[in-house]
This record gives sequence, structure tokens and C-alpha cells, in this order.
Amino acid sequence: MKLLEERIQKDGKIRNGGAVLKVDSFLNHQIDVKLYNEIGKEFFRLFGDEKVTKILTIEASGIGIACIAGQYFDVPVIFAKKSKSKNIDGSVYTSKVESFTHGKVYDIIVAREFLGPEDRVLLIDDFLANGSALNGLIQVVKSAGATLVGAGICVEKAFQPGGDLIRGQGIRVESLARIESMSETEGVTFC
Amino acid sequence: MKLLEERIQKDGKIRNGGAVLKVDSFLNHQIDVKLYNEIGKEFFRLFGDEKVTKILTIEASGIGIACIAGQYFDVPVIFAKKSKSKNIDGSVYTSKVESFTHGKVYDIIVAREFLGPEDRVLLIDDFLANGSALNGLIQVVKSAGATLVGAGICVEKAFQPGGDLIRGQGIRVESLARIESMSETEGVTFC
Repeated sequence: MKLLEERIQKDGKIRNGGAVLKVDSFLNHQIDVKLYNEIGKEFFRLFGDEKVTKILTIEASGIGIACIAGQYFDVPVIFAKKSKSKNIDGSVYTSKVESFTHGKVYDIIVAREFLGPEDRVLLIDDFLANGSALNGLIQVVKSAGATLVGAGICVEKAFQPGGDLIRGQGIRVESLARIESMSETEGVTFC
Repeated sequence: MKLLEERIQKDGKIRNGGAVLKVDSFLNHQIDVKLYNEIGKEFFRLFGDEKVTKILTIEASGIGIACIAGQYFDVPVIFAKKSKSKNIDGSVYTSKVESFTHGKVYDIIVAREFLGPEDRVLLIDDFLANGSALNGLIQVVKSAGATLVGAGICVEKAFQPGGDLIRGQGIRVESLARIESMSETEGVTFC
């Protein structure tokens, strides 16, 4: 998606010797709602024929994108919660997600009542790198016995293994901007 | 807002002997995007003349509502992050928020570059009870030297002190559904 690539070139900031891409002025701290709208429209262009019944994302930065996209699909949005409580009971689907940024593993939960075998689920998230969050969401969809139609991602770090690993499972992953490489001196190169 | 009150009556669930109102089938876990749209429209009806330049909310459940509302105001949305890191440096505004649900105090942060004295800020959140989250956001707006135009809240538990405390500071708070009382036997009564 040209618009997103251009915006990353213009306003993205590369930090930590090329390891971190900060897009917090328009994507995941301050939000350009018009850009979200174009992203939502593009996800609908890509997945609009898939008879999606639910959009599933994960807190926090996925929520806004999923809600704006939800307007085009005209379906409910569910966000998986990062669980702070130890008492996860039988009323929820759960899986584990490893955060490389925060260096820990946490549980995500989705209430069973909102997802079932009749659902056709589109996953939406802002970033795909190691694929841990996306894998966690995939496990939730599997636990529910729902059909996974695919994943819509804003920014994929294609030089990290997540995208290949998930596509290798036969899952359709559509990333609107795929980064081939990035460095503080050379900037961002897209695939 | 009649639509939201009716939805709470229909789909809200009262738990823990009247202490907890669960609205997670339409407001803050599974999301009815059409309802969010009506909520966003109503916030714009209430605050549309206030020359708002930024909408500020807090992760996680505020983000979707703020993004949908942001479409009507045509301004950027910022979400305050709950900080997991100890190294809060000079590049962020910060304040403390007490979570009564999780029984702990955490820091929220907003990058300084996104909020300044020239801004007119509307706060948006899903719930107002003790007012701790809203107070945290108010502190951030004050730290930035920005003008606070008010707060748009979906559900206010009017029997808890937050709303009165914040209105007592001369701040305009508009809650779309104000709960006077609730119990597992009697259900919800609105103000």
C-alpha cells in the first residue's frame, strides 16, 4: 500500500541501530484516523469476499485499526485481552504470547461466548515481526473451531521470521507494507 | 443517550452483588462498531463546537471509541500508554492511575511531541467510576499546558465519586449513560 509505505518513509523513525521502527506519530500512539480509514478500506478490498463474520485483534494498538476496518466489513470486532489475573477459567479461550519488546510471556484471553465454529475470522494487527501475537490469535481461532480467513497486517518486518512461519502454515497473510531491511543510515527498504 | 441505555438494559450483566457491570458483549471486549459510531456522533454533537485539535484516551478500551469519534472531529487520536518500563525519561508526560479492578497503581505516558499548549483536547473513555484514569489524563493535559475542553464518557457509575470530583474541578464531563444504581435483582437504574 503506497500510502502507508510513503508515510513510513516520511515519518517513521529507525532506532536502536536498525532494530526498532517507531511509527508512533501516526500508527500506534498518536493515530492518523484518515490513514486508518485507508488501511481499513484496503483490508476490505483484500478480504471483502471472504464472508468474514468477526474481526479479531489484540490490545492495544490493534484495536483502533480493527474498529475502523470493522466499519467496512460491518461485523463485530473482538480484541483479545492481555490477562493480568491468574484465575483463567473455562469461560475463555486462552493462549500464550511472547513479547520481545518487554521480554516476557503473557496470556491472552477471549471469552468463549463471542467466537464459535460458525465464525469466519479475520485477524488484524499493526505489526508482524516474530509472529508471536499473531500465532496467539491463530490458536484462539483454532480453539474456537472457527474458520480463519487470514490476517491483515499494517507493517511486516519481512526480515524477521513471523511472516514466513505463518504463511508456511497455509494461512493467508496480507501485509500493507513489507519491510525488507532498515537501518539508521540507509532508512527503510520495502520488499 | 437512549440507544446506549437500552443496550445496557438489554445486554449488560450485573455481577459481584451489584459491584460490576459487564458490557463486554458490545462495548469493551466484543465491540458493536455501529454503536461506537452512534457514540462518536453523539460526542461530536456535544463537543463539535469546541475547536478540538486532539482526542486523548487511554489503552485499551478507550482506543476504539476514540478512533471512531476521531472520524467526526477529523483530528488525531492519542492513546496514553500504560507503562511497563521503569525508564521514563524527559520525552514523555506521565501521571499515575490507580486500577481498582486490578488493585495496583501504574504509570501512564504520552510522548511530549504529540501534545502542547496550542492544543484543545477532548478526553474520551468507556467508563467513569472513581475517576482515576480520567484524572490521570487530566494531569497529562495540564502538564502539556494544553486546553482541556472536556471529557466524553460512555458509561458513568454516578453512584461512585469520580464524576462529581471531576465536575467539581470545573471540567465539563458528558456521560452518555449515567447509572444511578444497579443490583443483580433490580437491574440498572439510570439518572
